[in-house]
Order: sequence, then structure tokens, then C-alpha cells
Amino acid sequence: MNLLLLEPGELGAGPEVTLRDDRARHLRDVLRVVPGQPVRAGVIDGPLGTVTVVAVHPDRVCIDASELAGAAVPDRPRVDLLLAMPRPKVFARLLASLAAIGVGRVWITDAARVERYYFDCHQLRPHEIRRHLLDGLEQARDTRVPELTVRRRLERLVEAELPDAATRLVADLAPGLPRVAEVCAPGGRVIVAVGPEGGWVDRERRLFAEHGFVAVGLGARVLTADVACVVALGLVHDALRR
Amino acid sequence: MNLLLLEPGELGAGPEVTLRDDRARHLRDVLRVVPGQPVRAGVIDGPLGTVTVVAVHPDRVCIDASELAGAAVPDRPRVDLLLAMPRPKVFARLLASLAAIGVGRVWITDAARVERYYFDCHQLRPHEIRRHLLDGLEQARDTRVPELTVRRRLERLVEAELPDAATRLVADLAPGLPRVAEVCAPGGRVIVAVGPEGGWVDRERRLFAEHGFVAVGLGARVLTADVACVVALGLVHDALRR
Repeated sequence: MNLLLLEPGELGAGPEVTLRDDRARHLRDVLRVVPGQPVRAGVIDGPLGTVTVVAVHPDRVCIDASELAGAAVPDRPRVDLLLAMPRPKVFARLLASLAAIGVGRVWITDAARVERYYFDCHQLRPHEIRRHLLDGLEQARDTRVPELTVRRRLERLVEAELPDAATRLVADLAPGLPRVAEVCAPGGRVIVAVGPEGGWVDRERRLFAEHGFVAVGLGARVLTADVACVVALGLVHDALRR
Repeated sequence: MNLLLLEPGELGAGPEVTLRDDRARHLRDVLRVVPGQPVRAGVIDGPLGTVTVVAVHPDRVCIDASELAGAAVPDRPRVDLLLAMPRPKVFARLLASLAAIGVGRVWITDAARVERYYFDCHQLRPHEIRRHLLDGLEQARDTRVPELTVRRRLERLVEAELPDAATRLVADLAPGLPRVAEVCAPGGRVIVAVGPEGGWVDRERRLFAEHGFVAVGLGARVLTADVACVVALGLVHDALRR
């Protein structure tokens, strides 16, 4: 845990917050905090800063969060991801990585080469998704929870639901495609689409092309969805930093 | 399984190879192969090409591997990784990703912020390492198994054991560091060093600097070792493709 995340409701009553759950155990047993010690902390979708440990008890840790209230809220990451639903086991693991590397919105969608049963999995339950995303934010020291939306119909999503003002990229495997850095201008927002492990079909490629998506190559190797997403987001973040 | 991998010893006797293990079950039950069908295949650390299905039985699948013998051996990936031993659970998961994204050699080493018990884990047993690496190669359609070496002493490794003719990069978190693409010339071999989750200490930074490693930034976020490695290797491969 590189960041102590608080729910917005926990800050309501006064400057002091009492933690009694896993966070208290982690502060006490792993970080071995002592009274007076500052700890990096943030409010979910709110400010990022520090709190001060007030007291450490066997069953609870009390912190003073008054400094945190006035701290700045981090910007939402400038990259959004359109992702064909991966295998459920891969999906669960991927969520924390996505939140860690930094993504603003995630649209989970269907594609020709996605198995239908993937959408029935327990990994798509909102509280499971949220738990994995918060793990990633604690890791990367961010407070902005990626907005995750499931939209089964790829056509409707691409035609009507994506924001306008963004560079649109679709990762593909064909040889000779441009690199991300060649088509991704510094600044602005980017949407990057990552397909299923079997790849996009031609109908999907046409749909993306008709709606302004530029095909980019991530290299010649066939990657699992989790590795492909991390590589794609890593390249886009890197291109935006220039 | 995007590639059927054969052990070199399996090709010895003649053109026909009989598979009786998980590979046979996968060919029969998942890929539903029929006699005469070509299947992408490779020999571990050898040629990459296709074999032809000869017969499908309930307990075995017979293939003709004669075409494979004359096929080309893929080049070893041009990126090597020096990695501070990550948490054992992360390490196991990471191995397949490394083999998939492509890495020539991996040196696993100690660092000030690595817990000593990490080196006692069962994930470091050679047959477990190999199994994960082969999973990654089957995914990415490559036959070249990354050479993985455990070298507990970072100083000795950096001072005496690394190959000379390589661009040397060390991933770090300090703000203002150059991007991988700014210091990594196309062509040639690259060694990239990725630290423990707590980061390198100053003594290690000096060691790397004294031995020609250039510090590069992967962004401002604290990443787990598996995400950091995939991002670092993704950026280096991308820079080498220019």
C-alpha cells in the first residue's frame, strides 16, 4: 500500500478519522506507524496529500485528515481504453494494472472473437471491479477511480457513445502499421481500442476506420489482453509526455 | 495456445511425432484439428513453422513435423532485462508476460529493497520457471526461451557479468528523466534494469551510473514489478522498431 485511500464519507464529521479495517492493520503491522507520523493518503476521487497518525491501538488507528481536505485533486489520466472483454481470469488481474498505469475511462465491449460466457462472470460485479481498481490506485498513488462501463454492442458504442475530442487509436497485429508515437500528438485526450486475443475481424476494422480510429502496431507478437493493454497504455502515456 | 511447442528430442526418430499429453488434448478438444490440417508449431530454441496433423485418436494426436525441420530459427529478442527479485507471486505471473513480450536474457538479482525470503520461494525452481516461460512463448509464437540467471550480488553482476555491447538503461522514478525513446538508438542490443517496488537506493543508482547505465523515466506512477517490466520492455521494443 503506497497510499492510504479514504472514502469521501469518512471525512465528514471532523478532522480525526478512526480506521478499524485492513487499512488499520496495514498501517500498524506493515508500515509500523507511530503517532505524529505523516502518511501519504487520498480521498477516493478527491484530494491527494498526507494525513498524520494520531494514535495506534490494537484494534484501530486514528489519523488527522485536516491537511488532506485542502490538497489538490489529481487530474484524470488523459487516456481512455476501449477493451474487448478478455477472459474473466485475465480481466480481474488486469483491472488493478489499468488503474495503476493510469486510465480515465474504460469501455468493456463485445467483439466477434469474444466468448459470450465471459459476460456472465462474477469478475464483472461492480464491487469486485471497484476493489481491484482501488488496489491499483493505492499502488500508483492516485485517487481518480477509472470509470468502467460495460457496453455489449460495439457498433452502438463506437457510433454514438464515445467522446468526440480525442485521438482514436486501435491496436492491431498487421505488419507495417505505424507506431503509437507516430500518430499520437502530445497533449489532448486519447482513446485506444484493444481487441480480443484472437484479434479484430474485418467488419470491426472497418467500423473503427469509419469512425476515425487509426490502426497502430504494438509489435509482431501475439499478446494476452493484459499485456497488450499495459503495452498500449504505456506507449500512449509515453507519447503524451513528449 | 497459439503455437504447438515441441521438445528437440521429440523430433529425433522420424518425421512423425505422437503427442499424448496436454498438447494432444488441446489440439483435439479446443482447436478440433482434423487430419491434413496445418498447425503452427516450433521446436524449443529451434525452428518456427508448421506441422501437419496426420491422425487424431482419443488418446493421442499424430503430426508430421518434416516441414518444421527446415524452417528458420527466430532471432533472439534484442532486449535483456536485469530485474530486482519481485514478490514471488508477482514473479510467477511475470515470467509468461516476459516471454510473450520478448526478452533475450533475464538476470534476477538482489537489491537493498528486496526482502531476503523472496529468494527461497518455489517460484525460482527451474522447472516452474521453464513452464511459465514456455506458456509465454506459446502465446507469442516464439521458440526462443529467455535465458534466466539468478545472481544474488548486484555489484558483481553489474561490474563483471553483463555483456559489453549494449545500450544500458535503468528505469527510475525521479521526475525529469529522459524517456526511453530519447536515449535508446534503433538497432543493437539493450539491457534495461527494473528495480524493486520500493525503488533503487542511491548506492545502487551510483553503481549503475558508474557502469554506463542511463536512467530513464517510465512516468510518475509507482508500478508493480510486473507492470513496470512490461511497460519498460514495451517502450524499448518500440524504440528499437523505429
